Amino acid sequence: MREDVRMSGQVVVGVDIGGTKVLAGVVDAQGHVSSTALRTTPGRRVVTSQVEDAMVEAITESAAGRPLAGVGIAAAGFVDPPGERVMFAPHLPWQGEPLRDLLQARLGCQVLLDNDANCAASAEARHGAARGAASGLMITMGTGIGGAVLLDGKVLRGANGMAGEFGHMQVVPGGQACECGKSGCWEQYSSGNALVRNARALMAEQPSVLDEMCGGRPERVTGPMVTSAAEEGDLVARQAFASVGDWLGVGTANLVAALDPQVVVIGGGVSAAGDKLLDPARGALRRTLVGAAHRRVPDLVAATLGPRAGMIGAALLVTAD
Amino acid sequence: MREDVRMSGQVVVGVDIGGTKVLAGVVDAQGHVSSTALRTTPGRRVVTSQVEDAMVEAITESAAGRPLAGVGIAAAGFVDPPGERVMFAPHLPWQGEPLRDLLQARLGCQVLLDNDANCAASAEARHGAARGAASGLMITMGTGIGGAVLLDGKVLRGANGMAGEFGHMQVVPGGQACECGKSGCWEQYSSGNALVRNARALMAEQPSVLDEMCGGRPERVTGPMVTSAAEEGDLVARQAFASVGDWLGVGTANLVAALDPQVVVIGGGVSAAGDKLLDPARGALRRTLVGAAHRRVPDLVAATLGPRAGMIGAALLVTAD
Repeated sequence: MREDVRMSGQVVVGVDIGGTKVLAGVVDAQGHVSSTALRTTPGRRVVTSQVEDAMVEAITESAAGRPLAGVGIAAAGFVDPPGERVMFAPHLPWQGEPLRDLLQARLGCQVLLDNDANCAASAEARHGAARGAASGLMITMGTGIGGAVLLDGKVLRGANGMAGEFGHMQVVPGGQACECGKSGCWEQYSSGNALVRNARALMAEQPSVLDEMCGGRPERVTGPMVTSAAEEGDLVARQAFASVGDWLGVGTANLVAALDPQVVVIGGGVSAAGDKLLDPARGALRRTLVGAAHRRVPDLVAATLGPRAGMIGAALLVTAD
Repeated sequence: MREDVRMSGQVVVGVDIGGTKVLAGVVDAQGHVSSTALRTTPGRRVVTSQVEDAMVEAITESAAGRPLAGVGIAAAGFVDPPGERVMFAPHLPWQGEPLRDLLQARLGCQVLLDNDANCAASAEARHGAARGAASGLMITMGTGIGGAVLLDGKVLRGANGMAGEFGHMQVVPGGQACECGKSGCWEQYSSGNALVRNARALMAEQPSVLDEMCGGRPERVTGPMVTSAAEEGDLVARQAFASVGDWLGVGTANLVAALDPQVVVIGGGVSAAGDKLLDPARGALRRTLVGAAHRRVPDLVAATLGPRAGMIGAALLVTAD
């Protein structure tokens, strides 16, 4: 951390803004998180200032009256190369608004902006599961799939700053329609949304503890409900995870064929399910990866920073040297 | 080129060994090719020494009595990280044989070995279509699909030296069986083999100049036949290219979503068809790439070194500093 920040008593806040929630927290230079604050994302059909309001509220609450040295934002969308705007976000309303400057004006401190998966990957490379790896992939499973390619601990940015959009690789020709406007995208088969869709479809066919959890209204089923049902051994929830996990492995095999990374780190909210997600994914990776018998298949591991990786990586935008 | 090589009158030979042919040639430090020699690949169900015999013959013929300073081999298969063995090759018989040492013993000079797509990519980065690009993808369409990721002019090697195996990314779940043992691999839909398979299937439904070219025996149709039929405006051949080109664009969009390269270079034998292949590919890339309206879509260009890129890159193994 910069000396002036460390000495001043000011705090650095990292914010992770995704399709369903805004998580803000005070993060120190070792990646430790103290106070956090959570808000619901107002949606993607609202005016953008409502999303910014939710972000400012969460930032202010987490700082708890301490002065802000700077704020880092991890956003679930395409961020332009200078880190000023969210150009396009399937689950958020921004379309090129100058988010960095808007927040800087409202907060009165330095604001830095990057893609959420890039932030999570930086955090895992510096403080988490990809620490010390020469090459890695970060796959973040939230509402959709985000991702990042790590080379020597750095995020590969690409010619437009848009590398790592793994969720929109087509895995099924003419498949499920995607919020991005295309169809058959990987995240339609392996994500929080896919998990819930799978569970709802299976509930129509067989009884499940989810029936009671959602009060008999399958449209109210959420990802965390499916995770806790799976923890209770519920078959519907387990099958929903098996499918999402299998597709996670298939898509990962495609990326491993292309990039041959040392480690694959799975983060994002859905990764909280741990081996219920990762075991089927490991099986599918080994089954579908070309030449699996003739190579070391990379470890597929859960992000150690969990759902906080994006937030911690956002703070790294401000504090990293 | 090393001073001792330049001064001695010795020659450096590059060899490209693929599923159908062995191409050897004398290559100078500027990437210029003088004499070449061609042999047919004996197949993948032969003893490996038969393939080595064909290689030694082609090398000897191209050198035409001049002493060998060194030989570089570009092989269509997984090469181990030290560059000693072809571990696994869907279209060739090697399975871990120490090819580099075997050829070194037979030729009495230094031999260096790498994957064919890596070699082609190095050649295009140094002397061809990717020259000066900060990032690029090389996609080589021959019997199958090979590939390489270029970053700052260097080939990304990966943890096992196996990065760039684009042809075996799954694009159709439960799709066409592949020589690699999996199914639905990209190269089953976009490659020389796929082109010929498409043409044969279409010949069963409609008349074509290919009927005459193959003497009424569709099993004798080859990729070059389909290319010349397409040049004559034959509808069957044009449709065969349209499908292979469309799939080339779909798979490229997946790689561009993941890596966001500045340029995509298409090489290999099939790329000799030029815009008959590349125009449908460009259309499909723009159609299926996520956020295409919000980014610069990378140029999709033909390799400028053509089918000689692998051979030139093989020679670079010996001559590059």
